[in-house]
Amino acid sequence: MIKIGGQVLDDEEMLRDVLRRFASLPGKKILVHGGGKHASRMAERLGLKIRLVNGRRVTDAATLQVAQMVYAGLLNTNIVAQLQALQVNALGLTGADGNAIRSVKRPVGEVDFGFVGDVVAVNVAFLQTLLAQNWVPVFCALTHDGHGQILNTNADTIVSELAVALSQRFETELVFTFEKNGVLSDVSDEHSRIPKLTFEQYETLKSNGAFTDGMLPKLENAFRSLRKGVRRVRILHALDLGSLNAEPHPGTILSME
Amino acid sequence: MIKIGGQVLDDEEMLRDVLRRFASLPGKKILVHGGGKHASRMAERLGLKIRLVNGRRVTDAATLQVAQMVYAGLLNTNIVAQLQALQVNALGLTGADGNAIRSVKRPVGEVDFGFVGDVVAVNVAFLQTLLAQNWVPVFCALTHDGHGQILNTNADTIVSELAVALSQRFETELVFTFEKNGVLSDVSDEHSRIPKLTFEQYETLKSNGAFTDGMLPKLENAFRSLRKGVRRVRILHALDLGSLNAEPHPGTILSME
Repeated sequence: MIKIGGQVLDDEEMLRDVLRRFASLPGKKILVHGGGKHASRMAERLGLKIRLVNGRRVTDAATLQVAQMVYAGLLNTNIVAQLQALQVNALGLTGADGNAIRSVKRPVGEVDFGFVGDVVAVNVAFLQTLLAQNWVPVFCALTHDGHGQILNTNADTIVSELAVALSQRFETELVFTFEKNGVLSDVSDEHSRIPKLTFEQYETLKSNGAFTDGMLPKLENAFRSLRKGVRRVRILHALDLGSLNAEPHPGTILSME
Repeated sequence: MIKIGGQVLDDEEMLRDVLRRFASLPGKKILVHGGGKHASRMAERLGLKIRLVNGRRVTDAATLQVAQMVYAGLLNTNIVAQLQALQVNALGLTGADGNAIRSVKRPVGEVDFGFVGDVVAVNVAFLQTLLAQNWVPVFCALTHDGHGQILNTNADTIVSELAVALSQRFETELVFTFEKNGVLSDVSDEHSRIPKLTFEQYETLKSNGAFTDGMLPKLENAFRSLRKGVRRVRILHALDLGSLNAEPHPGTILSME
């Protein structure tokens, strides 16, 4: 399970390099991509206002349309076409396709997040059928509620939920990639990479405020996945996808102890 | 093979009714949808100019992006989610997914149509695998060139090419649906439906200028499909999808003789 996100999706050349590395990975694989920055730019072009509550985006009907257009329409379709050119038999998916990922609209509490879905079920049998055909599923950050409504779901959450579900039947490794060299103890210093991050270290660093708003949910999802049966979780630079098995290893390997 | 297009896609309520009828159709089925009017409106919102040459749209890079966003991002994803709610195990596809439909960029002659693809290969084995799983493929009007480029391809052409390719292995019926009662001898008179249209009648009516710009390519594709092995081709109102086997039959049945 490979997640690509962040600036990688914004840089056509880097994306092409990353997809080339992804294509060369052996074994069954699934790609999940984000695209929030693209979506924000498109929302701006359409004159939509981004509504943030406590730093989190609220997905109203117009914003959901933009998410669908950008994630499923532009990014997913282009990534699939590029992977096909690399001889990877990719299949672009939202959670609605094959009922792959069902979610429920987040209940309205103090904040109404709008059309945001919390994952309730992953269709492992469906994914197993795709993987058995040597097809490569490529997911964007959309799910459905089973009643006809598409919902916006964080891509880090999607990749984690898929990894946890698949780990019941497969030995599953989860790799978060982005434009940094891994988890950094000092976000402004690319050389402060933490090669191995235990849950205890994570808790300490978190209470010291060492992590950015983008990194925190990634780490939460990562440790949750480890606890729930995913064999190995790593966070690394997208261009290091080609050297996953190198020694010394790139990026950060997370571990419970 | 069912094509839905025209105003059906513009009317949420009618689309829901049509999808309900599609869901109740027995047997293996594939849905193909257009969405040109949606795309035109989105292009307008984004301040893009539509370029027409001899009445045909030119697909520049920005227009292709809009097509991807609207066809694959909005319409396809919403249709798949709605079909899933109707217990149809739908799978949304562009021609890039599973290398389903490969095309070549139309050669530049007197006119450069831009990112428009002419179909060169349909991956019947891929479709057969999907249908064997009782999944229902839902195609939008996009193909790929095998070198990483998405291309715009007319939805009537896509549905015809798919039907012809599948007719080599399956008994295939092709149904074009839209917001009229079938082929009309007088386009302004809904009661002028032609229940059965032979190729000879078609040629006569064509030379009399009886057909609109939208109907002509449909009929060309339709007769071409018949010649190439599709068992039956029909053109009818989308709401008549539920009464395909009624007597007297709805819409227009085409025949070579």
